[in-house]
Amino acid sequence: MSPSRRSPAATGNLLYAQSGGVTAVINATAAGVIEAARGKGVKVYAARNGILGALREELIDTSKESAAAIAALRHTPGGAFGSCRYKLKSLQDNRAEYERLIEVFRAHDIRWFLYNGGNDSADTALKLSQIGKALGYDIRCIGVPKTVDNDLAVTDCCPGFGSVAKYTAISTLEASLDVASMADTSTKVFILEVMGRHAGWIAAAAGLAGEGADAPPHLILFPENAFDEAAFLAKVKATVERVGWCTVVASEGVRNAAGQFLAEAGTRDAFGHSQLGGVAPVLAALVKAKLGYKYHWALPDYLQRSARHAASQVDAEQAYAVGKAAVDYALAGMNAVMPVIVRTADAPYRWKIEPAPLAKIANREKKMPKNFISRDGFGITAAARRYLAPLIRGEAPLPYGKDGLPRYVRLKNTAVTKKLMAFGR
Amino acid sequence: MSPSRRSPAATGNLLYAQSGGVTAVINATAAGVIEAARGKGVKVYAARNGILGALREELIDTSKESAAAIAALRHTPGGAFGSCRYKLKSLQDNRAEYERLIEVFRAHDIRWFLYNGGNDSADTALKLSQIGKALGYDIRCIGVPKTVDNDLAVTDCCPGFGSVAKYTAISTLEASLDVASMADTSTKVFILEVMGRHAGWIAAAAGLAGEGADAPPHLILFPENAFDEAAFLAKVKATVERVGWCTVVASEGVRNAAGQFLAEAGTRDAFGHSQLGGVAPVLAALVKAKLGYKYHWALPDYLQRSARHAASQVDAEQAYAVGKAAVDYALAGMNAVMPVIVRTADAPYRWKIEPAPLAKIANREKKMPKNFISRDGFGITAAARRYLAPLIRGEAPLPYGKDGLPRYVRLKNTAVTKKLMAFGR
Repeated sequence: MSPSRRSPAATGNLLYAQSGGVTAVINATAAGVIEAARGKGVKVYAARNGILGALREELIDTSKESAAAIAALRHTPGGAFGSCRYKLKSLQDNRAEYERLIEVFRAHDIRWFLYNGGNDSADTALKLSQIGKALGYDIRCIGVPKTVDNDLAVTDCCPGFGSVAKYTAISTLEASLDVASMADTSTKVFILEVMGRHAGWIAAAAGLAGEGADAPPHLILFPENAFDEAAFLAKVKATVERVGWCTVVASEGVRNAAGQFLAEAGTRDAFGHSQLGGVAPVLAALVKAKLGYKYHWALPDYLQRSARHAASQVDAEQAYAVGKAAVDYALAGMNAVMPVIVRTADAPYRWKIEPAPLAKIANREKKMPKNFISRDGFGITAAARRYLAPLIRGEAPLPYGKDGLPRYVRLKNTAVTKKLMAFGR
Repeated sequence: MSPSRRSPAATGNLLYAQSGGVTAVINATAAGVIEAARGKGVKVYAARNGILGALREELIDTSKESAAAIAALRHTPGGAFGSCRYKLKSLQDNRAEYERLIEVFRAHDIRWFLYNGGNDSADTALKLSQIGKALGYDIRCIGVPKTVDNDLAVTDCCPGFGSVAKYTAISTLEASLDVASMADTSTKVFILEVMGRHAGWIAAAAGLAGEGADAPPHLILFPENAFDEAAFLAKVKATVERVGWCTVVASEGVRNAAGQFLAEAGTRDAFGHSQLGGVAPVLAALVKAKLGYKYHWALPDYLQRSARHAASQVDAEQAYAVGKAAVDYALAGMNAVMPVIVRTADAPYRWKIEPAPLAKIANREKKMPKNFISRDGFGITAAARRYLAPLIRGEAPLPYGKDGLPRYVRLKNTAVTKKLMAFGR
């Protein structure tokens, strides 16, 4: 890897923006960025609602926040400055947007841009570094990894994933203890639906809840495999007959052999629309219709990716570390790179941060290796356990108030005075 | 209150059974029972799968478990000996079942029976104490309170409720931070469905997540109020327009003006059955159809009542205390009573345990006071906050393993040798 290095920009401000779906630890990355920059005497602006804030010139002056508030970001879920789902078009299709960003950077003396997101964001940061050069504006663009989906290329894992993995493993374990208690007269099949539209990383993490044929989860349904109804029903039946009950963890992205999402195949809501999400209720109906078992299902949705109260310490530390490294790289004059996590040992788990070129990350997607899924398609392998186990280790510290709730911070988010005309009017 | 007191039974064994839906802390009650009995030299048998284990003579010898294993019950969710949903018929309809229980008690020298459950279980314990007397068998029956629904009469609150309340408040807070971050371009309305088919205690607890018109949850839907679609939509719309987003917490038991559960009104699954549970997707579809907002919804189901990882310390302490008190009452010769929680002060919160006659608890249901719901029907009042706030305080201690998972115990559950013929053959 050969990230381009130039001499550090002498002075200026640093802009940090959050992108895409937020996580339990993306604010830990923000804390890493702001604390590292403060340590070097560099002012950090944050874009309100991600890249949209940069386009709209809606910037937040983080120097107005106390050190305690910034430190508290380290344990506060969600996106403290707002995020957005907004993908910039290609340079060809909407060069004006890129030029606007450079215009905003120029107006506020932004010399470093840190974009905290997934592969789309890596692409945006890469393009911005290119157009900056074309327009003669010296800007260093650093991508900062974030995604619960764990699908970024190059990096060994993505900050945000370890915590949703831990939440999922704990929830699978706890709900299974409940089901096991009640199975004699009540629920025999429990189905937990987890995020993962294209890759089964989160579903796979549920496998950490137990090991061996009789331990939950008894079946994991991955988006990587076409749903085989007969095999699914046979395994659920065999599990209930052997164990007395059965826990299924299903990725939201499970598809049938025709490639349709199971969650959308055939069900209609009260208004005649196709079913509004939920592969779990579809599977539950199938189990009831074909096997007659009493079931329950759960769909934690946003609860899983915002559950800072069950965050992984490894994940929280990595999230902070990539933020700090991004500032180090930027101030050292690097451009178009991302700090990635490199695993140097499985047991004991060791990792370090290294820069990797955005060109190798932008718009790519890391699939789960085929050898992570067991032969019958319903479980994880020893290789998957070796990879996943370290990522959920440790309990990230979290202060609670006397009221019994976590002490999450709410920033002041003081706006920076605008200097430009509104964009696109 | 005047629980009947007789002289203590001189010797014999104590039988403990868990009943109905389990909780994050019912095993803390089991730990309280077993540790207190051990302290007095009394052997504790546990019924496998609740009262069914007693009918089937499937008893577990808890003396085979180490002190460490019993201590670990204090932090292990689910029902360690199995529970069941099985309501004994009335004495008139099935006297044979009651006589069988006495027969099993006699065979195993059971002199004290502790039944850990809700109002049905209180009724069973009461009837058993009566039939014991009628059959000339000296048995002391104690009800031990447990239910996430918080609907037991006499007691100020029910062990199990405080923890699901805390989980719900934390989850509401966390998911709302997520929604707030994304609302500019993505989800504007988030709907969290919680347990509570007949009473809105759990939904009300979500109100602890925030205070004031702009803090989440912005709407709570209670089963106590008929669903008013127009008022609901108007408040969601006003909230989104004012705050930018909206969090709704809905009790699973929300009904329309005709008394039908919203979760069952009108929706059909792939097999033509009425919708398989879930008021949240029904509300989400309504919001989308009538207001056009992007939504997400979550249905944590068993996750909420098994979430020992987010349990309330007050709840865990009370769960343990009622178990210990039940043994004290039984060995002191009391009969047909339940240890109940008496609140002696709101701030600072103080409570004590007292015996109350089962006759005042059996088959009754405590409704949420009308003055706990705000005037517009969508929030909680200051009176509700005063009642609820202490119940989620403190974080119940929980040891984690090096693997990042809670160290939940699995008991050996050694069977006691049967002495009788099988029942009902």
